[in-house]
Amino acid sequence: MPESAARDPSRSYLGGPASYLSNVSNFKIIESTLREGEQFANAFFTTEKKIEIAKALDEFGVEYLELTSPAASTQSYNDCKAIVGLGLNAKILTHVRCHMDDAKLAVETGVDGLDVVIGTSSYLREFSHGKDMQYIIDTATEVIEYIKGEGLEVRFSSEDSFRSDIVDLLNLIGVNRVGIADTVGCATPDQVADLVRTLRGVVSCDIECHFHNDTGCAIANAYAALQNGATHVDTSVLGIGERNGIPPLGGFIARMYAADKEHVKSKYNLTKLREVENIVADAVGVSVPFNNYVTGYCAFTHKAGIHAKAILNNPSTYEILRPEDFGMTRYVAIGHRLTGWNAVKNRVEQLGLPLTDSDCKQITNKIKNLADIRPLSLDDVDKLLRKYGAAKSEDSHHAILESIDTPDQITQWQI
Amino acid sequence: MPESAARDPSRSYLGGPASYLSNVSNFKIIESTLREGEQFANAFFTTEKKIEIAKALDEFGVEYLELTSPAASTQSYNDCKAIVGLGLNAKILTHVRCHMDDAKLAVETGVDGLDVVIGTSSYLREFSHGKDMQYIIDTATEVIEYIKGEGLEVRFSSEDSFRSDIVDLLNLIGVNRVGIADTVGCATPDQVADLVRTLRGVVSCDIECHFHNDTGCAIANAYAALQNGATHVDTSVLGIGERNGIPPLGGFIARMYAADKEHVKSKYNLTKLREVENIVADAVGVSVPFNNYVTGYCAFTHKAGIHAKAILNNPSTYEILRPEDFGMTRYVAIGHRLTGWNAVKNRVEQLGLPLTDSDCKQITNKIKNLADIRPLSLDDVDKLLRKYGAAKSEDSHHAILESIDTPDQITQWQI
Repeated sequence: MPESAARDPSRSYLGGPASYLSNVSNFKIIESTLREGEQFANAFFTTEKKIEIAKALDEFGVEYLELTSPAASTQSYNDCKAIVGLGLNAKILTHVRCHMDDAKLAVETGVDGLDVVIGTSSYLREFSHGKDMQYIIDTATEVIEYIKGEGLEVRFSSEDSFRSDIVDLLNLIGVNRVGIADTVGCATPDQVADLVRTLRGVVSCDIECHFHNDTGCAIANAYAALQNGATHVDTSVLGIGERNGIPPLGGFIARMYAADKEHVKSKYNLTKLREVENIVADAVGVSVPFNNYVTGYCAFTHKAGIHAKAILNNPSTYEILRPEDFGMTRYVAIGHRLTGWNAVKNRVEQLGLPLTDSDCKQITNKIKNLADIRPLSLDDVDKLLRKYGAAKSEDSHHAILESIDTPDQITQWQI
Repeated sequence: MPESAARDPSRSYLGGPASYLSNVSNFKIIESTLREGEQFANAFFTTEKKIEIAKALDEFGVEYLELTSPAASTQSYNDCKAIVGLGLNAKILTHVRCHMDDAKLAVETGVDGLDVVIGTSSYLREFSHGKDMQYIIDTATEVIEYIKGEGLEVRFSSEDSFRSDIVDLLNLIGVNRVGIADTVGCATPDQVADLVRTLRGVVSCDIECHFHNDTGCAIANAYAALQNGATHVDTSVLGIGERNGIPPLGGFIARMYAADKEHVKSKYNLTKLREVENIVADAVGVSVPFNNYVTGYCAFTHKAGIHAKAILNNPSTYEILRPEDFGMTRYVAIGHRLTGWNAVKNRVEQLGLPLTDSDCKQITNKIKNLADIRPLSLDDVDKLLRKYGAAKSEDSHHAILESIDTPDQITQWQI
């Protein structure tokens, strides 16, 4: 069994029969922004941009980069050569159709390995390539033997694995690495667990998984696959790919970090995540989604009073990810109608103001009433706290709060 | 057992022991945009906006709307009354702390039911409310008996269920509806399946689930919960909520549609999805993410040649969701370096041009070379196809292709 498929029974997350199969602490990323990602509607990568993305991903620390087939166009062929020439730590793969012409072109470019792909479901056999299983197996054998003979890594991937007769798939296991794919994005974690566990029982080679996200399970499916013996997971930056894409690198990393933080921190340069996302977002002309994993601007924003109180006492009550590990910072919003007095008290302490709990509760009620008109900026909250803190008596405290009817009044204060 | 918890063994998706528990074809949505969604960093909803969102969600057909606690602020109290007064089909719930004062305020507003919530994990017991289990149980009993006495629906939800000692949770089952929550977003589908299956074995009441999406499993967790006997799932429009939120209504609907299309189509007005998303995105000042489920602009865009060919022959080869069912349309991109001749041929047929397969292959190679410089618009592809189609001889076909060196030349053609 190859090293990456080795299992460490001490690394148990479940306690059930799946635990000894788990590669949750022993997985590799095949980063496919430069292959799957190029199939995203907006993507048009120049050679320079591909090189910039490849270098950034290599700095992040992904184990593999997958590139568009050199058979796609002249530039695609030249780009493979250019990226191979960078001498990165990541191994360079390209994704080719199961065809000798394509395989030969790919070998010429100097890549470390080939991902040979063919559809194996009855749907695709009928509506895409129209070939029967015997033809598929004969062609695959020829192509795979050629690539092995050239001394390169070879993986055999089937598209649309989850609608294939599983026997079709298992008939193809003469290869030394297999890939399965949920090409239409219809698989669920329980189905993935079943299929991967079955496959793990009959092959000793590595297992790579590719999941589309049309129905929201791509990350969970990747995790279920690793729990049940898969070894390699395909990702792309921001998840870009055909339709709404595949597991985003950042979201997948968040999942794995939650499972084994030290392993993930030891392998990847997490503070580079935001940089590589910004490069790719800019290259394909999209904004990083507001709710993006880890780096979205609200990923570490806490708002409701009960959350804010707990976070201020102990961040791990509401955070499974430490923002600092990703070069991010936590933000506790307090100028809104859902605020709570503990969050206000924390701000009072940050400002070094001599206010009691009772003071904080009265101010909080005022903030809630004002914020029904519009939310208060942190600046405005601070002004209110400082003015209140500077007053000496209970009477003047009361007078300050009574004098304010709208957030605009505070905004206009010159302090 | 309440109607919604009933199980139909004929609706089996798995074949395993979980199937008879499944509510995949018998679930209800608790739409929490106006509660969880208000905890999103950007959210500030006026009364008018809340009413607009409530009406749109009611037209979509969600079974429940959950509102911010009337104890949060004066406006929150008045908003509950205003939305109750709309006479919607959806039942109106509000989400309150486990406290008699809050429960009494909520009952005053006329809502159909209360979701009583308290944290039960040792983390929250220590760092948030600081109360022990006996205090929690005593308070819960008083509050729940009061609400039942008022004739309202009552659900008892625990925050942070997945880090609680499960015994803590099960001690609370004197209630007639229970909720569990992955408040920090750390749960995985296998853990959810285990917990919900266990809970389903010891309670006969409904089970509601609330999942945060910090590590990318919220939709998959909701699905796993339904497979194992949960009955109600919390969603919000675009997933807005604390941090990066909870299952987005659209993504959750996509998952359930993939599992039981007819059931989902019978319950919900799917073509309203985009409208309600646009209302909410506008209200909170965000863009609908480029890769949004179902309504993202690339959700039904097909690009790679092999995908385009199959889609054109039979859309279900690469689509688990029918775009028409959601008022969306499919788009096959052809003016890029990953294009294939079958996609080009399909466009030739749409334009009614008399070109052979050999013609289409030659034009495709030209498009690939040109698109290495920059992608071609559909307009430009059409111009090229029409000019080629209007030429009579092989020689003139060849001359046309030879005459073009850059996409700009085609763009400048006046045809």
